[in-house]
Amino acid sequence: MSELHEVAGGLQPFFRSRWVPPPAHVRELEVDAGLPAGFRAAGVAAGIKHSGNPDVGLLVCESEGPASAARFTASGTAAAPVLLSLERCRLGALRAVLANSGCANAATGARGLEDAAKTQGAAALAAGVEPSEVALASTGSISHHLPVEAVIKGILEARARLSRDGDGDFQRAIETTDAFEKRASLEVQLTSGPVRLSAQCKGAGMISPRFATMLCFVETDAQLAAETADLLLGVCVKRSFERASVDGQLSTNDTAILMCSGASGVSIAPESEDELRFGEALDALLRQLAIMVVADGEGAGRIARVIVRGGRAQSVEAVARAVANSPLVKAALHGGDPNWGRIVQSAGAALPGTAPLAVDVAIDGIPVCAGGAAIRYDEAALAQAVQGAEVEYEVGLPGDGAETEVFFSDLSHEYVTVNAEYTT
Amino acid sequence: MSELHEVAGGLQPFFRSRWVPPPAHVRELEVDAGLPAGFRAAGVAAGIKHSGNPDVGLLVCESEGPASAARFTASGTAAAPVLLSLERCRLGALRAVLANSGCANAATGARGLEDAAKTQGAAALAAGVEPSEVALASTGSISHHLPVEAVIKGILEARARLSRDGDGDFQRAIETTDAFEKRASLEVQLTSGPVRLSAQCKGAGMISPRFATMLCFVETDAQLAAETADLLLGVCVKRSFERASVDGQLSTNDTAILMCSGASGVSIAPESEDELRFGEALDALLRQLAIMVVADGEGAGRIARVIVRGGRAQSVEAVARAVANSPLVKAALHGGDPNWGRIVQSAGAALPGTAPLAVDVAIDGIPVCAGGAAIRYDEAALAQAVQGAEVEYEVGLPGDGAETEVFFSDLSHEYVTVNAEYTT
Repeated sequence: MSELHEVAGGLQPFFRSRWVPPPAHVRELEVDAGLPAGFRAAGVAAGIKHSGNPDVGLLVCESEGPASAARFTASGTAAAPVLLSLERCRLGALRAVLANSGCANAATGARGLEDAAKTQGAAALAAGVEPSEVALASTGSISHHLPVEAVIKGILEARARLSRDGDGDFQRAIETTDAFEKRASLEVQLTSGPVRLSAQCKGAGMISPRFATMLCFVETDAQLAAETADLLLGVCVKRSFERASVDGQLSTNDTAILMCSGASGVSIAPESEDELRFGEALDALLRQLAIMVVADGEGAGRIARVIVRGGRAQSVEAVARAVANSPLVKAALHGGDPNWGRIVQSAGAALPGTAPLAVDVAIDGIPVCAGGAAIRYDEAALAQAVQGAEVEYEVGLPGDGAETEVFFSDLSHEYVTVNAEYTT
Repeated sequence: MSELHEVAGGLQPFFRSRWVPPPAHVRELEVDAGLPAGFRAAGVAAGIKHSGNPDVGLLVCESEGPASAARFTASGTAAAPVLLSLERCRLGALRAVLANSGCANAATGARGLEDAAKTQGAAALAAGVEPSEVALASTGSISHHLPVEAVIKGILEARARLSRDGDGDFQRAIETTDAFEKRASLEVQLTSGPVRLSAQCKGAGMISPRFATMLCFVETDAQLAAETADLLLGVCVKRSFERASVDGQLSTNDTAILMCSGASGVSIAPESEDELRFGEALDALLRQLAIMVVADGEGAGRIARVIVRGGRAQSVEAVARAVANSPLVKAALHGGDPNWGRIVQSAGAALPGTAPLAVDVAIDGIPVCAGGAAIRYDEAALAQAVQGAEVEYEVGLPGDGAETEVFFSDLSHEYVTVNAEYTT
């Protein structure tokens, strides 16, 4: 890790959280190492954003037999690009992704779907593929119509710029209020040879994904069956983006897509050692990205993991979400305040009618509450622990056998500022 | 209203929200008009709070045949005073309330229950009643043990100061981060004569009551059966405190108590015209108090009501709570930002798997979204509407027959400041 870090010129390593130890067979490449073989990308400024920043991204997989998988938001008010991708795309054999920022194309009704379809058609022409092979992803303000002309102009420009090194521009074209880049380039050593794995991801606000993330695109030159890609993406999204929350707000546009070009010639068979290795690498990649999304929660200064153990899966999930989404817990995290009473309060609120609930709480390994009651602890050590960049809360409920975790950010003044002034 | 207002010397009237028109048979008295006949109260500084502010309150009903009713938090980690009151009190015939601020006596286990019982015993001695006739209520930091000696000293001092005019001191003894007083004194004209109704209430943070409120004490000199008091309090709490949210955080200590001395000699028979009148007065009183609790949400600058209508009770409730507790909606409310896309997003998040959901949204009577899609509206009028002190959101879901509302506050910098620095 530290060696790679120095090679990369003093930048932080990608695997920077204590909660994601990189698997032994995974090597970090420089972030600008370029896309895996078989992929080209570009990002351009098409004028959707008033700032003039990049806002249209095109990602193309040049492969005869591509495999892919996708996950989308569960929102009842899912955006037009999500609905269209779900209804019209061959999600197991995608050859391109058209992404834009600056406009979510959500709450736009039938016209929103028509607009999305027009841009899908234009992207298909540009990439030389069928419209059903182009997935769409949008992010930005909800309720505005997509400026179709601008997007199509952007597609044409992006087409002319497609390159193996275009992932950085593609990344910038999907960002909104992101404060730092969430992008990675990895090499995974399989038994039959090395494969590449890269990802571009955006987050920041309106983050509490279920069945998907904000926007995340993953590319590999490994050869996988669509079923394998779907299985691996599904498992890894569940363990990463679905365990992350900035503000408890499921977005209208969450999308995660894995595309496999097969260009390395290294094939990953189902239930093989290589599937395990690749799965571990994908898992670590998405977990670190999810933590980076949380760490880049609008205005976030400190992040936390809450682990909840107990006898019932439903209860541990409810308590983990309640703790992670409590503005009181998040404000205390922000202030470096060891106010664990709010952890107990959140747990009790999540499980009404269970009083007196025998809840245990530990913070960074220091037990502070047992069986629902305060216990003695080293106050100085606790005060020190909650000043760290990553704070860990463990909550124990009666019984055992069920366990879950949620990564979350603090609640800061910056979050209020960003979100009180976003559209106006 | 305005006449009363002037009589009271330029103070704001109690009924100050456009959402609570005072019933015709209710007259506001000056806030310092004193308690209804049969009640005495006091509040003293016993040293629980480091600030030296009042922190122990005693309320006594001097009546041969008192009637009362109570509601408590549904939290699984309910505090010791809640558990003890529920288990040991004759809640239909209470003669006294011992309340304290500065310590919630929550997450304190068996010792917390013993401490609470000791103070209950001391308050019973001081009031000359049975321990089972003394309800307990605490508010303040969770996880600290109650300083029993200090509370008992406070009880003795409060006993010596009990008076008809003690409700102001009692009110101050239950406040924590409250920025303004939530107290009322009303006269209700019944067919058989006038009765008095008074209340003391505290709120501020950790506010999302279910089955109760933070702390609210209501006194009347009307004569009611315990069953009638229970029925009326239950209905009115459901329509007031249960529809209020500052931060979506159900407290460990929520308590609402109605006490009836009967000292006016005016009796309220079940299912009578007077029961209706008294119920309307109690309803208006608690709704206005709930709105004041929201308006005094830590750092709140602007409040809102979301009304959700649709075909299923469960869906309208889920959407109303999701909108009211969305930090994105609350931050937009704070900024006076007409960002109604976040209303659509919250609704969709609350009803996963229903896409495309035909949701309608109107803000202060201006329709902005119909059938899930943006519609044309007067942007200047909307921008003006969201600058008001009270903003109203209406959400329409498919179907009809179900309707609910939630009152909520904005998310401000002050909330973050208050809650990042509360215990340290």
